[in-house]
Amino acid sequence: MNSDTNTVSGGVLAAVLTPLDEALEVDLPTYLAHCRRLLQHGCDGLAVLGTTGEANSFGFGERLRILDALAEGGIAPRRLIPGTGCCAIPDTVALTRRCVEMGTAGVLMLPPFYYKPVSDDGLFAAYSEVIQRVGDARLRIYLYHIPQNTGVTLTLNLIEKLVAAYPDTVVGIKDSAGDFANMAAVCKAVPGFRVFSGSDTYLLPLLRAGGAGAITACNNVASALSARIFAAREAAAAEMLQDELSAVREAIQGAPLIPALKEIMARGSGHGGWRRLRPPLTPLATDQAAALFERLDALGFSLELAA
Amino acid sequence: MNSDTNTVSGGVLAAVLTPLDEALEVDLPTYLAHCRRLLQHGCDGLAVLGTTGEANSFGFGERLRILDALAEGGIAPRRLIPGTGCCAIPDTVALTRRCVEMGTAGVLMLPPFYYKPVSDDGLFAAYSEVIQRVGDARLRIYLYHIPQNTGVTLTLNLIEKLVAAYPDTVVGIKDSAGDFANMAAVCKAVPGFRVFSGSDTYLLPLLRAGGAGAITACNNVASALSARIFAAREAAAAEMLQDELSAVREAIQGAPLIPALKEIMARGSGHGGWRRLRPPLTPLATDQAAALFERLDALGFSLELAA
Repeated sequence: MNSDTNTVSGGVLAAVLTPLDEALEVDLPTYLAHCRRLLQHGCDGLAVLGTTGEANSFGFGERLRILDALAEGGIAPRRLIPGTGCCAIPDTVALTRRCVEMGTAGVLMLPPFYYKPVSDDGLFAAYSEVIQRVGDARLRIYLYHIPQNTGVTLTLNLIEKLVAAYPDTVVGIKDSAGDFANMAAVCKAVPGFRVFSGSDTYLLPLLRAGGAGAITACNNVASALSARIFAAREAAAAEMLQDELSAVREAIQGAPLIPALKEIMARGSGHGGWRRLRPPLTPLATDQAAALFERLDALGFSLELAA
Repeated sequence: MNSDTNTVSGGVLAAVLTPLDEALEVDLPTYLAHCRRLLQHGCDGLAVLGTTGEANSFGFGERLRILDALAEGGIAPRRLIPGTGCCAIPDTVALTRRCVEMGTAGVLMLPPFYYKPVSDDGLFAAYSEVIQRVGDARLRIYLYHIPQNTGVTLTLNLIEKLVAAYPDTVVGIKDSAGDFANMAAVCKAVPGFRVFSGSDTYLLPLLRAGGAGAITACNNVASALSARIFAAREAAAAEMLQDELSAVREAIQGAPLIPALKEIMARGSGHGGWRRLRPPLTPLATDQAAALFERLDALGFSLELAA
């Protein structure tokens, strides 16, 4: 969907994993190589510093440094949609402003997620406050709906109010709640709004319902397949490919998702450091890993790591 | 329970509200005056920068500045148990280290609260990592159990493991889940562990079950009454006072708790600025406030703000 010179606004994106060194700091060379590989293997863009990237386990200063490292590492900002949503508005504002200054394609913004229950009015006020404090016409926000982690729901009512108030700024959403009916309803209700599925299972169905694409964790290891589905989206052949992707997703989801993907990266790359996670996440137990690879092997899944 | 020269380790603590100015920054003069007033009106200590204090709506740098302001404002650190638990270990470590250097009585530490579900092993690893990185024998941690906000449960199994591994460091818990049976079970299972109720309703019952006291939001406006209960805890008279406190708590809880308490502070002090909240929290609607004061008036409740 995006040529090399275009800013990403749809298609296939990976919610990029963050490899760690022995001190549980970002292993930057491995991280940058992984980002480059993803862009060469079907990814139109990269959602760095999201849930899958363990961004919420990185401090405010660390996240700024990771953004800098991506730019210095030559990852084109127009391909990036970094996560910037924190519990505290000043932190969200500072991270978002940095992204705007870098020229990223947009930001993926969690709502504040500590206090609950919160009203639509409260969430509208929170997003408004961020938009007004950033105060930059270049800002493009993708809302990030992942209630299983945040405990906060972004309702259609809230989305419509935000789009009405900030039509050039609030341009899309990543819906990771796994409810296809909700994604399709948002597509229908808010024309032009870019709806991304957070689940691989709905890549093709959502594209056909007017969605923009998918931003997923599994795209760390399955982006080439996702890209083939995207390319074939208007053809009947896409359906078999989607079944293949859905089966991979299901096999991986049989274990905790982020540890499972890091395990696959470790085995595929031969670099055991990929298994490291920041607490409270923990690596797969040996039997979980064995069962994961049994499921993947049964599908004939293999990770292509060659550049 | 604490003389003027002792470090607070039990009794009555307020989860201190944070008044805001027009820019939604901390109104420091009002904040410091409120802290002083609470210490003069029954509070043995102050749990600043907790849930009630909207700490999670303040950025990392802001929280450091608030800690500095408390020290510079003459609030004795030995009376403070500041909240320091963030989603990211490096932020938790930095805030905790600052508290240790200030000489606070301890810190109130949320578990990392973005990722879920998490295992006891993952939470143990998270707390261990913080303790080891702070690396200071003066550190005293009160675990903060508030699953309705965090989505994370601190099980008895986890508590026992942490106390076994770090007996001089992990010294207590604030249990805000509202399940008295759980608080009592922890008191019984972990002798010497200081269990604080996060709910006013259980102040007296928990003290009689071996608990250390209560750290509550309502103590912003009811600390003198809580102190009378604490002082009379071995006498039958305490039970009527507890009924009185429970009724106040119930009246306030009929509205969203933090906005309701700020509304009470605004009316009691005549300073309307107390009504301000950081998004996503929002002030009470007019009818909510009216109903709140009807309930409180029916109890004969009045806020004593004289020094």
